[in-house]
Amino acid sequence: MIVEQAIEEYLAQRQGSRQWRFFLSALAEEFATQLREPDLRAMMQRIGTRFASAHPLPAARTIADASQAMSACWDAQGWGWVDLEEHADHLLIRHYCSPLRAAFGQEHLHWTPAFLEGAYQQWFQALGSGSALRVQQSSQADGFGCVEFRLAQ
Amino acid sequence: MIVEQAIEEYLAQRQGSRQWRFFLSALAEEFATQLREPDLRAMMQRIGTRFASAHPLPAARTIADASQAMSACWDAQGWGWVDLEEHADHLLIRHYCSPLRAAFGQEHLHWTPAFLEGAYQQWFQALGSGSALRVQQSSQADGFGCVEFRLAQ
Amino acid sequence: MIVEQAIEEYLAQRQGSRQWRFFLSALAEEFATQLREPDLRAMMQRIGTRFASAHPLPAARTIADASQAMSACWDAQGWGWVDLEEHADHLLIRHYCSPLRAAFGQEHLHWTPAFLEGAYQQWFQALGSGSALRVQQSSQADGFGCVEFRLAQ
Amino acid sequence: MIVEQAIEEYLAQRQGSRQWRFFLSALAEEFATQLREPDLRAMMQRIGTRFASAHPLPAARTIADASQAMSACWDAQGWGWVDLEEHADHLLIRHYCSPLRAAFGQEHLHWTPAFLEGAYQQWFQALGSGSALRVQQSSQADGFGCVEFRLAQ
Repeated sequence: MIVEQAIEEYLAQRQGSRQWRFFLSALAEEFATQLREPDLRAMMQRIGTRFASAHPLPAARTIADASQAMSACWDAQGWGWVDLEEHADHLLIRHYCSPLRAAFGQEHLHWTPAFLEGAYQQWFQALGSGSALRVQQSSQADGFGCVEFRLAQ
Repeated sequence: MIVEQAIEEYLAQRQGSRQWRFFLSALAEEFATQLREPDLRAMMQRIGTRFASAHPLPAARTIADASQAMSACWDAQGWGWVDLEEHADHLLIRHYCSPLRAAFGQEHLHWTPAFLEGAYQQWFQALGSGSALRVQQSSQADGFGCVEFRLAQ
Repeated sequence: MIVEQAIEEYLAQRQGSRQWRFFLSALAEEFATQLREPDLRAMMQRIGTRFASAHPLPAARTIADASQAMSACWDAQGWGWVDLEEHADHLLIRHYCSPLRAAFGQEHLHWTPAFLEGAYQQWFQALGSGSALRVQQSSQADGFGCVEFRLAQ
Repeated sequence: MIVEQAIEEYLAQRQGSRQWRFFLSALAEEFATQLREPDLRAMMQRIGTRFASAHPLPAARTIADASQAMSACWDAQGWGWVDLEEHADHLLIRHYCSPLRAAFGQEHLHWTPAFLEGAYQQWFQALGSGSALRVQQSSQADGFGCVEFRLAQ
C-alpha cells in the first residue's frame, strides 16, 4: 500500500541526521565518480579501522559482553545495534539500523557498509581474535541499513 | 576563565550532530594522511559544487534575496547562516556557525572550509555571476566554524 | 518475527528526539495522575491552539495548498506530515508519523493527540473554516504516531 | 558587537532540539497563564522527581562519583553537565548548559529550573542524603541555561 511505503520511507530517512545527509550524499556521488568499487570499499574500511581505534571497547570476556559493548557504542551515536551469533565456522555479525542508506543513499549501499567491516575487524582484533580472521560482508544492506558480516578465516 | 571555556567548548561541539561526528573525524584523519592540502581542498570544493547543484536556490534579484535564500538552505540543515556584503572590488561572504570544526575537528580547519568555497562558487555561477569570478577563502575559520570568503576576479 | 519488531520499535523510538523523551515521558506520567482524560485532552488542545497561533500558515487557496503548508511546518520540526481529503460531510485529516508516541509513550496515546486537534482547529479557523466546524480525532493513534481527525459540524 | 550576539543567540537556540522547541514554548505559555509561580515550580519539581526516579544513578561512594554519574545521564540526553562542590554548610550544585531556556524561553526561566531541583532532590535522597536536606535554586539561570542550586538543611 502506498501510504505504508511513505511511512517506511519517512522513518528510513529520519535514521540519518538532517545536518549531514546532503553533505554525505554529495560526498558519495563525488567518490563514486572518481574511484572503482574495490577502492571505495578499501577507503571505507580504513575509515572504519580509524573509527574503532579511536573508540576502543571495554574488555569483554564473552560474545554477549562484546555484543553489548559494541551496541552501546553504536546506539549512543544513533547507529543502531549489533547481534553476534556463534556458528561452527564463523561468527555472524548482524548490524541493525545503520544510517548508511539514509545518509549516503540507496545507490551507494554496495560500498558504504565497508565502513562497518573495518570497524568490526579492528574491534575483534583488539579483543584478541587473531589476524588470520577477517570480517567480510555476507548480505546486501536493506532499506533500513541492516546488513550482515562474518568473522572467519 | 576555565568554566566559560568549558561552556564555549560544549556549545561548539554541540554544533555537530552526534551521529556523524566520529565518522567524519575518522574520515578527515584518513584523508589528511593520504592527500596533500591542495588535493584535500580540491576534493572538498568538488563536494561543495555537487551539493549546491543538487540544491539550487530560488531566483534572487538582489544580494539581500540571495543571502536570505542561502541562509534558509543552511539553517534548515543546522549549518548556520550567511551574510553578503558588497565592496568596490569584491563581494564579502561571511559564513557563521558552520559545523565544520565540530564535525571534522580543529586540526582540519585549514582544508574543510573549501566545501563552502565550492558551494558558493556554484550558487553564484547559477545566479549568473559569470565564470571569471571566483570564490576564495579570505579568513581562518574560528572555533565556531565562522569563516569568510570573497567573490572576485 | 522478533527482529522485525525490534527494528520497528527502534525506528518508532528514534522518531522522538533523545533530548526531551525522558522529560516528556515524566511530564505525561505526572499529568495523567493529576487529571482525568477530558482535562488532559483540553489541556493538550489549548497547547495546540497556542502552537498554531504562533505559527500561522501562509494563505492557502486550495485544500492541496493548505495540506502542503501544514506539512512543511510539521516536517521542518520532525513531526511527520499531513494529508487532507475532502468527503461529502467532512474533511479527513490524516497526520502521519507524529512523535507523540515516541515522546510521551504508548500508554498516553489516548490523550496526547489532542494537541494536533487544537493545532488543526486553529489553523482551519484562521484559513476561514468558520467556527461551526470542529476538528475531532476519529482514529486511535498507531505505533508510528499516525492518527486521523475529521473537520465537520 | 552585534555579530557576536547573533552567534551566541544561535548557539543558545541550538541547545534545544528543533522537534520540541515550539511545543514546549506553547506549553510554557499555556501553563504560565493558568498557574501562579509557586504552582509552576511545584509542578516542575514533581516532573523532575519522576524523571530521577525513572533514571536511578549507579551507586556512588564519593561526591566526584556522583557528579560523574549525574553528568553522564545529562550528557547522554544533551542536557549539559553538573559540577558538585562541597562547602561547610551546603553542597553547591552547578548545572551547566541545560536546554531549559532554548526550549521553554527566556521569559519562563524563573520557574522552569525547578525541574532540576526536583531531579537533584530525588537523586541525592536515593544516594542517602537524608530527607532533612533540600535542594534549592540559588542563582538565576543564564542565557545558556546554566544555574546553581544548594543542597542544605
